[in-house]
Amino acid sequence: MRHMKIIGYGKDIGRKVLSFGLNKRYRMDETQTHFTMAITAIDQSLEVANCSIEDMDLIVFAGAIGFQPIPCSAALISHQYKTKRPIPCMDINTTCTSFISALDTVSYFIAAGRYNRVLIVSADTASLGLNPKQKESYELFSDGAAAIIVEKDPTGTSGVIYGLQQTWSSGAHDTELRGGLSSLHPNLYSEANKEDYMFDMKGPKVLRLVAKKIPEFVTVFEEESHMTLHEMDMIIPHQASRALPLVMKKLKVKEEQYMNYVQAYGNMVASSIPYMLCMALEEGIVTKGSQVLLFGTAAGLSINGLVLKI
Amino acid sequence: MRHMKIIGYGKDIGRKVLSFGLNKRYRMDETQTHFTMAITAIDQSLEVANCSIEDMDLIVFAGAIGFQPIPCSAALISHQYKTKRPIPCMDINTTCTSFISALDTVSYFIAAGRYNRVLIVSADTASLGLNPKQKESYELFSDGAAAIIVEKDPTGTSGVIYGLQQTWSSGAHDTELRGGLSSLHPNLYSEANKEDYMFDMKGPKVLRLVAKKIPEFVTVFEEESHMTLHEMDMIIPHQASRALPLVMKKLKVKEEQYMNYVQAYGNMVASSIPYMLCMALEEGIVTKGSQVLLFGTAAGLSINGLVLKI
Repeated sequence: MRHMKIIGYGKDIGRKVLSFGLNKRYRMDETQTHFTMAITAIDQSLEVANCSIEDMDLIVFAGAIGFQPIPCSAALISHQYKTKRPIPCMDINTTCTSFISALDTVSYFIAAGRYNRVLIVSADTASLGLNPKQKESYELFSDGAAAIIVEKDPTGTSGVIYGLQQTWSSGAHDTELRGGLSSLHPNLYSEANKEDYMFDMKGPKVLRLVAKKIPEFVTVFEEESHMTLHEMDMIIPHQASRALPLVMKKLKVKEEQYMNYVQAYGNMVASSIPYMLCMALEEGIVTKGSQVLLFGTAAGLSINGLVLKI
Repeated sequence: MRHMKIIGYGKDIGRKVLSFGLNKRYRMDETQTHFTMAITAIDQSLEVANCSIEDMDLIVFAGAIGFQPIPCSAALISHQYKTKRPIPCMDINTTCTSFISALDTVSYFIAAGRYNRVLIVSADTASLGLNPKQKESYELFSDGAAAIIVEKDPTGTSGVIYGLQQTWSSGAHDTELRGGLSSLHPNLYSEANKEDYMFDMKGPKVLRLVAKKIPEFVTVFEEESHMTLHEMDMIIPHQASRALPLVMKKLKVKEEQYMNYVQAYGNMVASSIPYMLCMALEEGIVTKGSQVLLFGTAAGLSINGLVLKI
């Protein structure tokens, strides 16, 4: 086990509430930006941890999309706090599962003694890039942010038990946002190609790949970790889509064993998993000693799983 | 020491040669893209390593700017090779020092047994976003790519001896590219604000911060690592600017002890350091057993150092 414990958590969500049938979605209002949502989540996590930003040894931004192409988003966050210590800043990106990848990575740093206390923040505002013509994704996403602070656990009771990532890159172009960086520069933006600068998801194709690969992932997971999904006290999945219950049913995971808030909150991209983790900690859904699986799929197609002892 | 060894390396550079006085710069021609340059470097690294992409346990993209906002660039690379195994893909970003951060991070994965063989690729094509009005940066950058393959070293002779990153975020807005992601969406691009979508460097201000912070960085580096800069067989610095010799002189590093190709190649953003490392390996500037310091500054302002035993 890579020993570390969660000492702080916080979150933010869009203040503009939309309803699509029974589905509630939360999008930024005019008082919020992608950046301010990240800061609100961090402020809350620092308060819970009773820490200052200056107590961090590393700041990781783990969102799918950054604030600016240069510099990295973590440095822009550090700048906002006018940090005096030179806290290293880095971005880690595996799209929707960026938080899992970041927490997994950070657990190695902490276990090896490189850093003792780390802030990881995810924030994504999909509303900036949704295509009204793609009803499924247009009605799926919420804007959200969540921050988690972890530190070395000298008692050796909490930590990361096991992590696994698989990327099935045949699906790399099935969920994408093509425009804005080097492949399609902003200076090529036009009325004719504006949809290339919006989120584009081939829903049925993604779902077919997910349905095929998740069972394979779980097989490797169970073999390597010597644990089963059913041993988990709680599974915190990415709130990818309304297909979540179908996927879980296929894996024979009971309703009470996983968090399903797709109807209530929608998909917050990389923020979904830490947002749910934060909720679970706030509401006592997971408590000290709980064995929790963070689990999700991401554009790539990546599948990530991480078993935490809280 | 986190044991690992370099088994493959490759690089690519822009084919259009420009001269600014004595300075040679290499920019993409119409046969190249950011993406194809990354692939060319990887192909070469696989050939040197006598490996296939399928032999990799992890693919890391470590450039300042990705190909697309979604998915992560490493997944797009994996897709290009039609990988059959689900090799995990992730992006790590600290702007110009992304390669050092990635290699540093990967060394923990390998030391802990998570992955055995990892491909790290950096590629940056600054020419896409240079501002002709900012002469200093307009004449400074080249387009380049470099890939390095590392694997566990069971003999225990090669590896990472020490790593340090500091981010002085007071400098976060002194080197930036503001437009293209969430802070300034491509749909806001106009003739009036087009410079916000170009690279913007406050050169003298950055240099003042660098001149002040590098000596502080070196003090921590030498104290923590119990090594001095002068013990290094070779220092491979980021080719940040023509101020490189001044910075090195201030640190009392002799000319023959570091690689200075700013005049010959310019600054290739995150690709500079792995490009130089690749050259050093190809030309025997560093050989088995050499103690090498990778060292650089990045937008952020980040400073990274990593001591490798080759």
